[in-house]
Amino acid sequence: MNHKDWVQKELRELGISLGFRYLPLEEIEDRLTRVRTGMKKQGIEALLVVQKMDFYYLSGTTQDGILFVPLEEKPLLMIKRELERAKVESPMENVVALNSNRELPSVIKDYCGSLPHSLGLELDVLPVRDYFRLQDLFPGARLMDASLILRDVRKIKSPFEIDLMRAAGEIGRKVYLEAREILEEGMTEIQFGSLLEAAAKRYGHEGLLRVRSLNYEAYSWHVLSGSSGGIVSQSDSPMGGLGLSPAFPVGASRRVMRAHEPILVDFGTCYHGYQVDETRMFSIGKMEQKFIDAYKACREIHDAVLEEVRPGADCEAIFVKTLRLAERLGYRESYLGPPGLQTRFVAHGIGLELNELPYIAQGHSYPLEERMSFALEPKIVFPGEGSVGLENTVVVTQNGYEILTKVDQDIFEVGGL
Amino acid sequence: MNHKDWVQKELRELGISLGFRYLPLEEIEDRLTRVRTGMKKQGIEALLVVQKMDFYYLSGTTQDGILFVPLEEKPLLMIKRELERAKVESPMENVVALNSNRELPSVIKDYCGSLPHSLGLELDVLPVRDYFRLQDLFPGARLMDASLILRDVRKIKSPFEIDLMRAAGEIGRKVYLEAREILEEGMTEIQFGSLLEAAAKRYGHEGLLRVRSLNYEAYSWHVLSGSSGGIVSQSDSPMGGLGLSPAFPVGASRRVMRAHEPILVDFGTCYHGYQVDETRMFSIGKMEQKFIDAYKACREIHDAVLEEVRPGADCEAIFVKTLRLAERLGYRESYLGPPGLQTRFVAHGIGLELNELPYIAQGHSYPLEERMSFALEPKIVFPGEGSVGLENTVVVTQNGYEILTKVDQDIFEVGGL
Repeated sequence: MNHKDWVQKELRELGISLGFRYLPLEEIEDRLTRVRTGMKKQGIEALLVVQKMDFYYLSGTTQDGILFVPLEEKPLLMIKRELERAKVESPMENVVALNSNRELPSVIKDYCGSLPHSLGLELDVLPVRDYFRLQDLFPGARLMDASLILRDVRKIKSPFEIDLMRAAGEIGRKVYLEAREILEEGMTEIQFGSLLEAAAKRYGHEGLLRVRSLNYEAYSWHVLSGSSGGIVSQSDSPMGGLGLSPAFPVGASRRVMRAHEPILVDFGTCYHGYQVDETRMFSIGKMEQKFIDAYKACREIHDAVLEEVRPGADCEAIFVKTLRLAERLGYRESYLGPPGLQTRFVAHGIGLELNELPYIAQGHSYPLEERMSFALEPKIVFPGEGSVGLENTVVVTQNGYEILTKVDQDIFEVGGL
Repeated sequence: MNHKDWVQKELRELGISLGFRYLPLEEIEDRLTRVRTGMKKQGIEALLVVQKMDFYYLSGTTQDGILFVPLEEKPLLMIKRELERAKVESPMENVVALNSNRELPSVIKDYCGSLPHSLGLELDVLPVRDYFRLQDLFPGARLMDASLILRDVRKIKSPFEIDLMRAAGEIGRKVYLEAREILEEGMTEIQFGSLLEAAAKRYGHEGLLRVRSLNYEAYSWHVLSGSSGGIVSQSDSPMGGLGLSPAFPVGASRRVMRAHEPILVDFGTCYHGYQVDETRMFSIGKMEQKFIDAYKACREIHDAVLEEVRPGADCEAIFVKTLRLAERLGYRESYLGPPGLQTRFVAHGIGLELNELPYIAQGHSYPLEERMSFALEPKIVFPGEGSVGLENTVVVTQNGYEILTKVDQDIFEVGGL
């Protein structure tokens, strides 16, 4: 059978029958309207969107290609591989083949009649070599940074997006419930983590978590038991864990989990690209009192933040309040990391990427807005001993918030000894 | 306990007891010698290495930081997070704190006495925004592209690296053996894939595969059954599979695997950052004859390539030979993809990343060299029906080759019907 015919005839139905949700055109149009407001403000005539999640957000597909967004005309989706599949996945009107980047100016000129005088690019992630090539291809155009426009638009989630995040939250809920059946004394952290990962994929988790960064890598198997929880590593996180090697020195290790120690499970799930992040505490038998107390403090800080969450609340002010509360509770030295290594945020924006806006953090003085989403994660770290924490993914509503990660927040105690 | 003391006292032993292999200093020195040869040729006075795998290759750690490599003096490892851990993981002599990129020039000046007039950077991956910042920080320096120097040095593996790749191959071998026990009729592709992934992590696989690219993503669960195997997607691969959503349209899907159809399992494993890539065919009951025949052709092409593999053999010439052989065997239209979507390579270099040099491919006319490593993967695709293929990771030896993925190459037939 001819590949093109087969894709066009069958792929849409096959995808839908296996759970694919395709992006509606109205979603894209609303997003484009907001992107264009930002373009006008910055004086950008057209965007070239290449980064996978920006591209998906504005086109509905992650096939390999470049999206051209002029201020006035309709956008043009140029696809390198695979064109027929992009036509199934994206509801956009103008979807054409792009055989190589060299063709970019001529394809755009054919479409618009002329080339733009200014081009917005994702300069926060675009490699320098690609930038130089674009300079050669568009010698008359001013190349400008449009990354903040895209990050800014993406920080407000649509009901369609929140629905997908809710579905991710539901996957996470099932994983944490199943976790109680999986955890056993004598297991290593990575065994536990990998079985959680397998359960998550069975429930619909897509396996990869995404971060907007050259070097930052995300993964789900952040299972830290006892002293592993007291180890800081490469990431801007209160605790990194030991990991599996110097090449992957974060997350679950081959350490055997023991009775009574705190077992921190920070597990992200992803559905249609949308992520939620979540942390719960486990123990085999009763957890040592020191960690139970610290976890109670995390819950108190978590709840104190949520009390403040509503449109208009200032992110930095909320963060500063948690510092004071941590101090009052006796955890000034261990809140968000060991002394000297404490992180300066208690929540990070989340959606298609794990480092979206907003941050509830030092230096982030701006108001929360309706339909922003973030992962709130107060954690307490005792170097050499262990760590505890609670994390939920939250969306800001008109008057408050909705928690998308609806798992019981008590310590999950298994195999009572 | 003080975090610094604890890390210094215990982390090295803990890591080693849990299987960490730290990079010996002699390895680094040999690599630096070869890097400096490339720097001299290009007239580069110093390198700033930031990309995680280049950084790991030259320092032994993946803690967050920047490596400064001057032509003559010893390199300087500057660490943002976590300094004490980097000191444990890297055998380098000069390891210092870097609080922010703004400090870079002063830290380097303190170390060298002056700033370099030319700086080599990884322009193939470095984001534009970081490049502009470096321009501001080093106004007197010429910023040059050093990425090919690094890729070139990394393409020749040391015995130490080959040993780690052998260990990754051994993990893969155990996974494929266990796969026969796992595969059952009625399972979905993603269920099968996620159980393979869990088994792999139990045997030491690190979970993440790595590619040097802004958008390209790697994953292990490339399980394609029946018609899924005939679907091309975003990646430059003969077949992409359906995947789980438009956000992740590659690899295993929720399709239920049926008896007699070809089940292609392309599973990568990673140990200490070193990857092997491997493909074997499975079936539930006897596979349909059409696919058995095609798989036989893949094996023939695979073996014909290996017959040519030795130092000095031209990569493009080998590739062209496989085209002729595929045609002679009757698979001109389906070799390496469906008509119009056929890929132009039969092997890709592999090591810390899945897209290293060399490529056995169209347009890659250069000789194989001793200790190059690549994944050889002849595949045959029938759109709408399925695909078959064989893949092994191979290292070039003095007179021929060694296969690092030592799994039986026959079709794995389970649950004979």
